[in-house]
Amino acid sequence: MSAGRPAGPRHVAVRNIPRPDAEAVRRLEAAGVATVHEAQGRTGLLHPSLRPVWPGATAAGPAVTVLAQPGDNWMLHVAVELCQPGDVLVVACATDNHDGMFGELLATSLKARGVRGLVIDAGCRDVRALQAMGFPVWAKAVCARGTVKATPGSVNVPVVCGGALVEPGDVVVADEDGVVVVPRRHAGAAADASDARLSREAITRQRLAAGELGLDIYGMREKLRAAGLVYVDSAADLH
Amino acid sequence: MSAGRPAGPRHVAVRNIPRPDAEAVRRLEAAGVATVHEAQGRTGLLHPSLRPVWPGATAAGPAVTVLAQPGDNWMLHVAVELCQPGDVLVVACATDNHDGMFGELLATSLKARGVRGLVIDAGCRDVRALQAMGFPVWAKAVCARGTVKATPGSVNVPVVCGGALVEPGDVVVADEDGVVVVPRRHAGAAADASDARLSREAITRQRLAAGELGLDIYGMREKLRAAGLVYVDSAADLH
Amino acid sequence: MSAGRPAGPRHVAVRNIPRPDAEAVRRLEAAGVATVHEAQGRTGLLHPSLRPVWPGATAAGPAVTVLAQPGDNWMLHVAVELCQPGDVLVVACATDNHDGMFGELLATSLKARGVRGLVIDAGCRDVRALQAMGFPVWAKAVCARGTVKATPGSVNVPVVCGGALVEPGDVVVADEDGVVVVPRRHAGAAADASDARLSREAITRQRLAAGELGLDIYGMREKLRAAGLVYVDSAADLH
Amino acid sequence: MSAGRPAGPRHVAVRNIPRPDAEAVRRLEAAGVATVHEAQGRTGLLHPSLRPVWPGATAAGPAVTVLAQPGDNWMLHVAVELCQPGDVLVVACATDNHDGMFGELLATSLKARGVRGLVIDAGCRDVRALQAMGFPVWAKAVCARGTVKATPGSVNVPVVCGGALVEPGDVVVADEDGVVVVPRRHAGAAADASDARLSREAITRQRLAAGELGLDIYGMREKLRAAGLVYVDSAADLH
Amino acid sequence: MSAGRPAGPRHVAVRNIPRPDAEAVRRLEAAGVATVHEAQGRTGLLHPSLRPVWPGATAAGPAVTVLAQPGDNWMLHVAVELCQPGDVLVVACATDNHDGMFGELLATSLKARGVRGLVIDAGCRDVRALQAMGFPVWAKAVCARGTVKATPGSVNVPVVCGGALVEPGDVVVADEDGVVVVPRRHAGAAADASDARLSREAITRQRLAAGELGLDIYGMREKLRAAGLVYVDSAADLH
Amino acid sequence: MSAGRPAGPRHVAVRNIPRPDAEAVRRLEAAGVATVHEAQGRTGLLHPSLRPVWPGATAAGPAVTVLAQPGDNWMLHVAVELCQPGDVLVVACATDNHDGMFGELLATSLKARGVRGLVIDAGCRDVRALQAMGFPVWAKAVCARGTVKATPGSVNVPVVCGGALVEPGDVVVADEDGVVVVPRRHAGAAADASDARLSREAITRQRLAAGELGLDIYGMREKLRAAGLVYVDSAADLH
Repeated sequence: MSAGRPAGPRHVAVRNIPRPDAEAVRRLEAAGVATVHEAQGRTGLLHPSLRPVWPGATAAGPAVTVLAQPGDNWMLHVAVELCQPGDVLVVACATDNHDGMFGELLATSLKARGVRGLVIDAGCRDVRALQAMGFPVWAKAVCARGTVKATPGSVNVPVVCGGALVEPGDVVVADEDGVVVVPRRHAGAAADASDARLSREAITRQRLAAGELGLDIYGMREKLRAAGLVYVDSAADLH
Repeated sequence: MSAGRPAGPRHVAVRNIPRPDAEAVRRLEAAGVATVHEAQGRTGLLHPSLRPVWPGATAAGPAVTVLAQPGDNWMLHVAVELCQPGDVLVVACATDNHDGMFGELLATSLKARGVRGLVIDAGCRDVRALQAMGFPVWAKAVCARGTVKATPGSVNVPVVCGGALVEPGDVVVADEDGVVVVPRRHAGAAADASDARLSREAITRQRLAAGELGLDIYGMREKLRAAGLVYVDSAADLH
Repeated sequence: MSAGRPAGPRHVAVRNIPRPDAEAVRRLEAAGVATVHEAQGRTGLLHPSLRPVWPGATAAGPAVTVLAQPGDNWMLHVAVELCQPGDVLVVACATDNHDGMFGELLATSLKARGVRGLVIDAGCRDVRALQAMGFPVWAKAVCARGTVKATPGSVNVPVVCGGALVEPGDVVVADEDGVVVVPRRHAGAAADASDARLSREAITRQRLAAGELGLDIYGMREKLRAAGLVYVDSAADLH
Repeated sequence: MSAGRPAGPRHVAVRNIPRPDAEAVRRLEAAGVATVHEAQGRTGLLHPSLRPVWPGATAAGPAVTVLAQPGDNWMLHVAVELCQPGDVLVVACATDNHDGMFGELLATSLKARGVRGLVIDAGCRDVRALQAMGFPVWAKAVCARGTVKATPGSVNVPVVCGGALVEPGDVVVADEDGVVVVPRRHAGAAADASDARLSREAITRQRLAAGELGLDIYGMREKLRAAGLVYVDSAADLH
Repeated sequence: MSAGRPAGPRHVAVRNIPRPDAEAVRRLEAAGVATVHEAQGRTGLLHPSLRPVWPGATAAGPAVTVLAQPGDNWMLHVAVELCQPGDVLVVACATDNHDGMFGELLATSLKARGVRGLVIDAGCRDVRALQAMGFPVWAKAVCARGTVKATPGSVNVPVVCGGALVEPGDVVVADEDGVVVVPRRHAGAAADASDARLSREAITRQRLAAGELGLDIYGMREKLRAAGLVYVDSAADLH
Repeated sequence: MSAGRPAGPRHVAVRNIPRPDAEAVRRLEAAGVATVHEAQGRTGLLHPSLRPVWPGATAAGPAVTVLAQPGDNWMLHVAVELCQPGDVLVVACATDNHDGMFGELLATSLKARGVRGLVIDAGCRDVRALQAMGFPVWAKAVCARGTVKATPGSVNVPVVCGGALVEPGDVVVADEDGVVVVPRRHAGAAADASDARLSREAITRQRLAAGELGLDIYGMREKLRAAGLVYVDSAADLH
């Protein structure tokens, strides 16, 4: 859905957007969705109904945003021209819709411009061709339903996609775990926090693999007792 | 869900928010959700899964926003203190949750402060008591499930509620048709546009009631022909 | 969804349709949805997600059918002109959509033509005005989302609405229990079968109210035994 | 769904079940679903998808349980005979199903036996007749779809209904807020705890109505600070 | 669901059905679901909830149709005998049901008769065995729930499956993008239109891959301007 | 959800549970979910919304059960310590929740203790890492949303997970078809019944592969006639 903040003309395409630091984008992609989401304070995650249409891919890049009408993919064609290499196209829809707004031809066009991938709060088709091309898509449905080109929306305005606010130029990171958005100005800080988290987790992973317990590593035993957890030896002790 | 724009401390309660013009709020409530949504360019509507828990009420007012954790209504207690007479409390949740975060006691507290109603992207309970008190609620579910008070969220930050961005002080309008949000600075313009729409519709309604057709009033016949619609006399003419 | 049987032009409006016997329609409405559905062999029921938007109404009449595009109510305006007094408008959508395709103005227009009600596999708005007018609607959602008039569909072609095939001129019966469709040619037979069922049920109701058991009235005891049901005196006998 | 604990014959009807103290049942009904659920430690609530099919009723009583096959209401007829005055019939289904397993005739039969109401994890029909009779039903759907009588299930075995385990003779309490189950042996204790909770809430309600804040009544301010909540004067202080 | 058009006996199995031109079937399978759906005017698509239970397969053939009761797969056994080599079995259900009506044994039987695949608006089990056999299934769910053989339905009558009308002998085409049905008499025309579309798309794909824009290839720029789309250089120009 | 049978302290962790015969577990895993579900009288299946997060794995073992709060994975840490080699961790949630309660670190810890897999009626993250580790998970969603450690639940109490009652020490079997629970004391009998079923099916499979029909093997023809199924030669015979 649109972020609902009308300003100026109703249907608008914004040509130029600020883009985040490319190195921060690269580090955020390497960290992955779950780590980035945690590292920025458990914010920015899109709804888990948005899933990769083929397995194994990752993508990250500045968001070029689209607000589309239901059953109408006209604005995706407008957006292609405004994409730069490394971008990720993010498509929100004015209402719930799972039609196949995106397929092989648009993917060919985006790939020709160097776009990294697509996140769409609607449907996608031509899944096998997309996989063969190596063009990753995160979508709400696989659906072959065709769409019209009749009613304009907007490009590069703030949108709500998968329940999260995405502003043009924000960093979008997507992998097997879903999609997360990082505000552009926090990209560097989020990358730093993600790397720090990865370092901490590497140590914890080693300790857990060696058989130490999270209860001890995180010092949870006393807190659990204070919160009222009671241990008993067996079910017989419950009565 | 949160609007995902961390800034400063992770969990924050903002004491003072700008509020919109009271007369604009009154006019927007009178116009109703469908009219306001249309008048501001078909934006700002919350998802239709948010329904009134008892029929017949309307509410409008500046939004005091809450971002709550799933199964945790602690922040609603924080928000009560920050409400002023005429406000509408708007509760978003960090993830899908239908627990009964709100009931009679919180409604008593809000009513004592002059709050007009509640919009919550989660569950609500004590429905009969709420109706008896005349305190209107728009919620995703009626659910008696109790909630904890364990993890902070935020109050008066931008939130995504029902798929729409709501900023503190925006006007929220709610009735039998659902809930719409109007950006604070556009409240007056949206009220003007709503009134203009109501005037136009009054005339159209009279003409339609008198038997005129929308096809003629809106001049659709030629456009339909151009778009490819073909009239035939009967199904037999289709073959 | 459309019944998927293209024939002739892609977007078509059929002016004249056969209509069923009016007396049969009246009797089917009196019998009610559950009885009619049973009487015609448990067929014709629309999906229970189609609910009355205000309580207490019934409607029945020949179906004038519409196939609409998602988020687009243009064809409803075309259909109004093709309705006659006593008809019920039945709107299917080319794909899942809950936008508010129908509201007070279209209801005013339909009412002026004597239309009995609306069944729509999409959303509806202006619920309070519809109730005040006494115009009944069965819809999938109450939603204020506005729709465009940009892409043609068809009027008076076979459609799939709520998962049931509806042909123009079929009898649609709707009440608090939902919506059922009766093929036009079977309207009389379905009315006869419904009346017979009502007569039988009146007798059964009396016997049940007097304390007789369905087990005995329907002679189920032996069949249950043959099917393997075992009675025991208490849970203790299960082990 | 069934509680999955086969014992003895596959399809069984248990004639006699233990029943809870009648006075405890009366007190639990008076306390209401939300209070009882809280008073027994936030347990026992059925899924909120089970809703009253007409508004305003309450019911409470010992559960007579049914495990039915999808689209098959045969076991409901078996259960009628095993009900006593004051019971509530609880119907679970072996798999998700929203067919209209229950309607006016079965309600007539249950009412003749003094049964208080029905909770069914499936569909219900004849809603207007049920309301006219004053027989309350909590169901997952209103649906006129007819059912067969072909495959046995069980009566008075433990079942999972609406995601909660219900054993024969447990107390079921239902009102506008939903349905809760209380283990039979805890009925008295749950009634005591409910009454105590009601007494405490009456005092809290008075204080809240007088303008006191939950923050103060519940002593939350220090805990919120400790949990990391930060107050700022305005959004300007966030940057 | 059934197409709701009772005629003659209530439960019927039709032995002989017309079948489409085999070469047309072959060409439609080669074209794929999305192309065929577009080529026949965006009709005939089944609901996207019907997904392949294992990836990578395609199937096409004349539809042998089944109308089954919920939780009952008896009619599938009846249908096996009426299938011919090259057919696709299409199973609709009288009501929503996700039970595992189909598994390895029925697949073995169908494969022995040369059936190409199964489309079922219900559940499927034994997924790994089906993949090992190379027998493709499109289903609404993977579910091991067993079904009874107690209540008849029909074979080779018109059914509504996945929201689309399927008549016996229609061509069903299924691949990774879903399932589409082509009316038998239009099979040749739909194959021609599909091939023409593929030829056009091959050219467009080359132009897009070379960097041309859809905006220019499809001549959209002027239409977008006429529809009200406004370009601005940056977000700063919106205020 | 919890099985709603409070007893003793509200939040409890039971250290020792009875475990089933290891050889029975091995045989049940070999038989697979669909066979075990059938062999124990079509009981014990969890809801099909619980799916493997990566394809191809199987798991079986004694259930160590967890009742978690929504958005809170604290109890999973408690449970780790109580697991033994060969166990399967089964996590129910007090209310619907799809947050990512489980990921790579907890999997590392469980794997270090020899746990066979996880069944969770909530979300899971780090899917690629889990696949790389070979640690299988059956979950309701893939979701990166982080969870808190703030509110206790219980470990090794009876829970309702995916709509089925699971008691600590019951056998859980999981594969591509879903998850089934076998009561601990019936593990041996269920394994015997599963093996018997597999033997019978092997013979049936051979006969079906050779072209025999289920209609004949199962002797259905006469029963179908008695149930009212009528064969006709062609659709023309229906009128």
